[in-house]
Amino acid sequence: MAAFGHTRWAIAEGYIPPDSTGPGPQMTSHETVCILNAGDEDAQVVLTLYFADREPAGPYRLTVPARRTLHQRFNDLTDPEPVPRDTDYACVIDSDRRVVVQHSRLDSRQAENALLTTIAFAG
Amino acid sequence: MAAFGHTRWAIAEGYIPPDSTGPGPQMTSHETVCILNAGDEDAQVVLTLYFADREPAGPYRLTVPARRTLHQRFNDLTDPEPVPRDTDYACVIDSDRRVVVQHSRLDSRQAENALLTTIAFAG
Amino acid sequence: MAAFGHTRWAIAEGYIPPDSTGPGPQMTSHETVCILNAGDEDAQVVLTLYFADREPAGPYRLTVPARRTLHQRFNDLTDPEPVPRDTDYACVIDSDRRVVVQHSRLDSRQAENALLTTIAFAG
Amino acid sequence: MAAFGHTRWAIAEGYIPPDSTGPGPQMTSHETVCILNAGDEDAQVVLTLYFADREPAGPYRLTVPARRTLHQRFNDLTDPEPVPRDTDYACVIDSDRRVVVQHSRLDSRQAENALLTTIAFAG
Repeated sequence: MAAFGHTRWAIAEGYIPPDSTGPGPQMTSHETVCILNAGDEDAQVVLTLYFADREPAGPYRLTVPARRTLHQRFNDLTDPEPVPRDTDYACVIDSDRRVVVQHSRLDSRQAENALLTTIAFAG
Repeated sequence: MAAFGHTRWAIAEGYIPPDSTGPGPQMTSHETVCILNAGDEDAQVVLTLYFADREPAGPYRLTVPARRTLHQRFNDLTDPEPVPRDTDYACVIDSDRRVVVQHSRLDSRQAENALLTTIAFAG
Repeated sequence: MAAFGHTRWAIAEGYIPPDSTGPGPQMTSHETVCILNAGDEDAQVVLTLYFADREPAGPYRLTVPARRTLHQRFNDLTDPEPVPRDTDYACVIDSDRRVVVQHSRLDSRQAENALLTTIAFAG
Repeated sequence: MAAFGHTRWAIAEGYIPPDSTGPGPQMTSHETVCILNAGDEDAQVVLTLYFADREPAGPYRLTVPARRTLHQRFNDLTDPEPVPRDTDYACVIDSDRRVVVQHSRLDSRQAENALLTTIAFAG
């Protein structure tokens, strides 16, 4: 399939809740960037994180292979630095191939989990 | 009404939770692709599923009749193969007529259900 | 402010849960179409509902006055006919002025409510 | 990074639940407008709120500095007037620089919180 989507995406609402209820990693409060690369060439993806009161963090480098999807938890990013919990952030996703990006969060701070999702903004 | 929408759509965040709480099928954890065909000709739709670590699955063939909506649970797809639970996936929706696509999930792993939805990405 | 938005919108995922928990009308399970008319002329809006197995219902006629927002519960529509509960549907929103449309649901079938929302598809 | 996004955005579904469960401010029922300014110049942002039965309120003035994100709770707006609780509203976001806008709500009226989000409509 020919690649489709966009090469720049953004998420404005980023927030990893500091607490969780239930067995991890499934029920751990988390945020995920879901990237679909429907094309026939691997996509090199760079995430840049924005904050309220400091300079951006990054680049966080990911590879999404051809004809694959990668659901990357922000919780698991460590290079160049972990993503702080309980902190407002935003994210720009740049890819050298056209991809589709969706954002989701599972919040299990209280006893029953809550979910949100949206297709990211195609820049 | 003249058909409107797009002929290619994508969902990047696919995941069927492995567990459920409450009476099925209503409260069974599930994901649904909702397709609206407002036009006057039947739409032949093909779903292709993408995964993190294997080649895509499909084609899954659906018909959305003229002036109808189809809310298809991914849980109920069986041909050419069932959709694995507790597994990250993504989905491309191709239609020979213009349609509108929305994605939703009900997650009832914990005692109270959570919901998410988004209009899919129009490719 | 000059009107902005679109004159045709669609929601593919419509479903009014048949049961509720908690005091109504606030906590009654419901779906809402939220329409913003930022312009200086009243908008005449027509909803058409689509189903899985019957011809569309409508027109449902609404007025969104100039510089106002209308959050219309589908539960409260009665003319030309009520919206059936526990039934998949979809909705096309046509307006004679440019408006912005967002869709949301509160599901209180289980003890704690769940929410979903998305900006509708601009046709 | 060059600025990207749009200079006008809208949210049609605004509603601050009147009650909350759990420790504030984290678990207080709230709505947030999340604005990402990825560009190298500060963005001056103006919010205008629309209601069902009165003239719009505003302007609410915000600054989103260069390379920063601002997650502004509607609950905390006071100038020119607070945002009423338990009241339907909508919001137009105007910026002198290109930004990306996302809307979210945490509803903790019942014992366990619910969440919703969507990328706003780019006008």
